[in-house]
Amino acid sequence: MSGERYFVGLDVGGTTMKSAVVDDHGKPLSAPVVMDTHPERGQDIGLETMCETIRRAVAAAKLTMNEITAIGVVTPGLMDIKAGLILDPPNLKPWKNVPVRDHIKTVFGKPTAYQNDANAAAYGEFWVGAAQDAKSMVLFTLGTGVGGGIIIDDKIIEGEHSHGGELGHLRIDMPDRGRQCGCGARGCLEAYASATNVVKRTREDMACWRGPTKLREYYTANNDVLTAKVVFDLAAKGDELAMKIVDDTAYYLALGACAAIATVDPEMIVFGGGMVASGEPFRSAIEVYVKRFGLPFPTKTVKVAFAKLGSDAGFIGSAGCARMLVMGK
Amino acid sequence: MSGERYFVGLDVGGTTMKSAVVDDHGKPLSAPVVMDTHPERGQDIGLETMCETIRRAVAAAKLTMNEITAIGVVTPGLMDIKAGLILDPPNLKPWKNVPVRDHIKTVFGKPTAYQNDANAAAYGEFWVGAAQDAKSMVLFTLGTGVGGGIIIDDKIIEGEHSHGGELGHLRIDMPDRGRQCGCGARGCLEAYASATNVVKRTREDMACWRGPTKLREYYTANNDVLTAKVVFDLAAKGDELAMKIVDDTAYYLALGACAAIATVDPEMIVFGGGMVASGEPFRSAIEVYVKRFGLPFPTKTVKVAFAKLGSDAGFIGSAGCARMLVMGK
Repeated sequence: MSGERYFVGLDVGGTTMKSAVVDDHGKPLSAPVVMDTHPERGQDIGLETMCETIRRAVAAAKLTMNEITAIGVVTPGLMDIKAGLILDPPNLKPWKNVPVRDHIKTVFGKPTAYQNDANAAAYGEFWVGAAQDAKSMVLFTLGTGVGGGIIIDDKIIEGEHSHGGELGHLRIDMPDRGRQCGCGARGCLEAYASATNVVKRTREDMACWRGPTKLREYYTANNDVLTAKVVFDLAAKGDELAMKIVDDTAYYLALGACAAIATVDPEMIVFGGGMVASGEPFRSAIEVYVKRFGLPFPTKTVKVAFAKLGSDAGFIGSAGCARMLVMGK
Repeated sequence: MSGERYFVGLDVGGTTMKSAVVDDHGKPLSAPVVMDTHPERGQDIGLETMCETIRRAVAAAKLTMNEITAIGVVTPGLMDIKAGLILDPPNLKPWKNVPVRDHIKTVFGKPTAYQNDANAAAYGEFWVGAAQDAKSMVLFTLGTGVGGGIIIDDKIIEGEHSHGGELGHLRIDMPDRGRQCGCGARGCLEAYASATNVVKRTREDMACWRGPTKLREYYTANNDVLTAKVVFDLAAKGDELAMKIVDDTAYYLALGACAAIATVDPEMIVFGGGMVASGEPFRSAIEVYVKRFGLPFPTKTVKVAFAKLGSDAGFIGSAGCARMLVMGK
């Protein structure tokens, strides 16, 4: 094959799946094609939807399947990365033991990579995003939950049980005192720093905050509905309680980052997800706490940055995994 | 070179340095040669002592230097592994920026590997010890402090700042509540589970323990001197307070193990150091807490084991690093 190589990246989520063709330099050839996942319709339909999303992505790129070098597919856990299996992820119910990699490989007759979605997002940021100049990086993704991925020397730390980089379940407080996490345990980072839990902490803090705060007004005016974005926006406008909550969030995330430093000591820590839209003050707050509470020597020079690929990280990283599969690195 | 290959492993500590020749299968050819480090005499004498220890190890193995394929040297941090430099470790004062790898390489004209001592111990256990059948492992070393090393697919996680596997400084409690660690921070695993801190916790617990305990008798009879070994021995004999302290230690270590699982998800977690002499009840207590407080899926099958190489792990692992340097793996 001469000339440019093209890779399809497919990012399967609980609600939608997204796909685009990406070139050898990590650039998508079109906006991603998005289709509804509808896991409730069963896994056979799910697999067919994946294939159709891939076909449409190739069409959107104005290419034919012949011009595609390899395909990458990423899904949320639980999974068996080495076996290419979706096991039984909570947000893809009732799917179970879906041989996603082999199915797509057989349908298209192309080398097919399979990876965890957060690991792939980390690989995307490592390949062509925030960490493209780093030799090692740890990504924390901040959404409904907290996910993560670890890349060292171009290699994804998948883990023996496909649980490498499950950073939302790093514990930052003791089991007998920590906040209750959705996973059943207490003290997990996710129970403090996911968007959902930022809102939960806000409600709790409002209940005992003595001073004035626009958060209370907003909350009352909007039928008790609140989002992490509102909290971050009000913090940017100087609301004291909102600022405290954002600062607490930075502190909790820094404690997670410190654990990543004490284990794999990366060159760079990257945070991605909705909250990072709030920009530099939040980033620098995390950095300050990393330096204050982390190991002195590595935190002197570790880089703390925000992700650059946004919600494209998943399919770009997925295409990157396909590229790594056929090219080594 | 035909036939068997031989590697010299040198393990430099603050008090003594140890060396032996190790064959291709990780077997030492003699008991290790031990010489005093005497860091206070300065680093030039230190480097010469290292070379002399190596020479004596080769002699003890009844070999000549010609028959040695490569040399491995390991030291405690701070260090720059890639540059082969001892920086300024607290227990090798007043040494500073010692070019240990290049010095030894030049003196003997052999390929020379350089590594952190706990990383090398982990590599030793991975190569020919407790984890020899595992593809990935995390080692916690329990001594005056708590150290660690992480091996994934035959590769040591050195870290960007030579701080990979600094597992004693994984935080298991929050900075505003945790126990004070020697590093200045609060809540580090080391502040709970090192031999020193087991003794410290014992003193604290004795002060508020209402029931009878042999610990108090021992303490009074021995001029207020206590060791972790005494605590573990009395626990084995059924002393309730001692049992509580050992159980607490298992719990704290399990919390550290859970953090290692949430980051690198290894096949095996290994604990080494004096405390593991207490055997199976302590190991199984750690395992129970790992399963109770760790991520359910990986902890279902993660193996929790005790180290097998004892204090030989350092020089065996060091020789293993030399072997890896010349043979890839």
